Amino acid sequence: MRWFQEKLYEHHKQALSIDTVHYHWRTEFQDVLIFENATFGKVLVLDGIVQLTERDNHIYHEMIVHVPMLAHGAARNVLIIGGGDGGALKEVLKHPVERVTLVELDDEVISLSQLYLPNVSDGAFIDPRASVQVMDGTRYVEQTREKFDVIIIDSTDPLGPGETLFTAAFYEACRRRLRPSGIIVVQSGAPFFQPKELEMVCRSLSESFDGVRPYLAPVPTYAGGMLALVAAGASRDALRPPCKVLRERFRPLQGQTRYYTPEVHRAAFTLAPIFAP
Amino acid sequence: MRWFQEKLYEHHKQALSIDTVHYHWRTEFQDVLIFENATFGKVLVLDGIVQLTERDNHIYHEMIVHVPMLAHGAARNVLIIGGGDGGALKEVLKHPVERVTLVELDDEVISLSQLYLPNVSDGAFIDPRASVQVMDGTRYVEQTREKFDVIIIDSTDPLGPGETLFTAAFYEACRRRLRPSGIIVVQSGAPFFQPKELEMVCRSLSESFDGVRPYLAPVPTYAGGMLALVAAGASRDALRPPCKVLRERFRPLQGQTRYYTPEVHRAAFTLAPIFAP
Repeated sequence: MRWFQEKLYEHHKQALSIDTVHYHWRTEFQDVLIFENATFGKVLVLDGIVQLTERDNHIYHEMIVHVPMLAHGAARNVLIIGGGDGGALKEVLKHPVERVTLVELDDEVISLSQLYLPNVSDGAFIDPRASVQVMDGTRYVEQTREKFDVIIIDSTDPLGPGETLFTAAFYEACRRRLRPSGIIVVQSGAPFFQPKELEMVCRSLSESFDGVRPYLAPVPTYAGGMLALVAAGASRDALRPPCKVLRERFRPLQGQTRYYTPEVHRAAFTLAPIFAP
Repeated sequence: MRWFQEKLYEHHKQALSIDTVHYHWRTEFQDVLIFENATFGKVLVLDGIVQLTERDNHIYHEMIVHVPMLAHGAARNVLIIGGGDGGALKEVLKHPVERVTLVELDDEVISLSQLYLPNVSDGAFIDPRASVQVMDGTRYVEQTREKFDVIIIDSTDPLGPGETLFTAAFYEACRRRLRPSGIIVVQSGAPFFQPKELEMVCRSLSESFDGVRPYLAPVPTYAGGMLALVAAGASRDALRPPCKVLRERFRPLQGQTRYYTPEVHRAAFTLAPIFAP
């Protein structure tokens, strides 16, 4: 049996068996590997790091999308930075939004994902409400004149091409593109292995937002047990509304999620002391 | 660099780098390996499966102990089946109990843990309230005449020597040793990889207990993102008391836990649909 070995951390690694390699090549920006694993289905790897699998990506995508969307409650215009696989886009389009803009640096990730992992986006890219910009996310945010209700930073880790998406300057540029009730959410690594990354994201977001709160999602193929996401907006309370409010807002989505529920939304913000930044 | 490879699942595995092997031998019952890892400290491996590491065992031990102890609120006599490393024993002894009995099949696990992983038990074995029985847990539960307030099944997985600890007959024998307000808690695997194990534990416990509720703890070195534990007692509500009640009961333990808090207790019972058995 052949194995893909992920060496994300120096003294710990995970490996996934390879049934078939569907694709392995270098784009302009990164190394892309797509293979089949008997437990997780198709696996997308960028620069040697697992980005998603068919079987568990919904946990990540539901949590990075529905938490800010339902905390907001009436988002009409949404921006996704990164997320070329289309999974976050698919989740946003479950809401009654008018427009979603996805800004991805590497257009080959978009086309390869649609070709090899069509279930992840499930037609989202051809939804008339969706539009794609192939460019650097920081440049897009500086240049656009649009205002958004929710901005989702669905990036890779802060090494390699995604690095500029983890700076206070970028978060401040995002704040200027948000309406007053707007919410931003940022992928911030596995807090057990990367506690400094979570701390840095929270501190940088605090320079621009009064309400900054990390929350957790367990994604089995992200080594380290837990992925941290950070939501930020004008107030802490707005990020974790009462269960009654969330249930009301969630009603039209009932049956369309496998991980997210209003109760999970609230519980995800309960951090144990060792994970609290 | 040398690596320990854990092959718990057929198509996914984790590996930990080995700085030094402290011990590797076969006891009467199982293969024991204790090694040093730069990230996790000392690692205890039984029959090729990671049982605990110095750095993250407290997550597991705090959650398997403080959840039933504080749900009960006045436990005086506690039984631990398994747990020869002494980590659960140490956590139980933080409560004002009169007596804790630890029943471990393999006395070499107890002595090796005290020798190589003394921080895990931290002197718990010489506490005058603790007593150790070296014997099979099912046999002990059948023979004892004692009544307990809390029973903790801190077992290995349901393959190998721990197998009989996962049967409905054993849970029924435990129920007979519990006082009416008693609570039992059972380690039940990683639900993402082993959903049937969790389902089986819940179903078997339901034959003897009216209140059966799984809850989750994220232990980074248990591959699969999340470990499921199942608590059971006379009623569902008693397992997850209101936050106010838990806070009151938790006060004497304040500052003695790094993962458990009353809020974490309540949030841990909030299962996403995909994890619900």
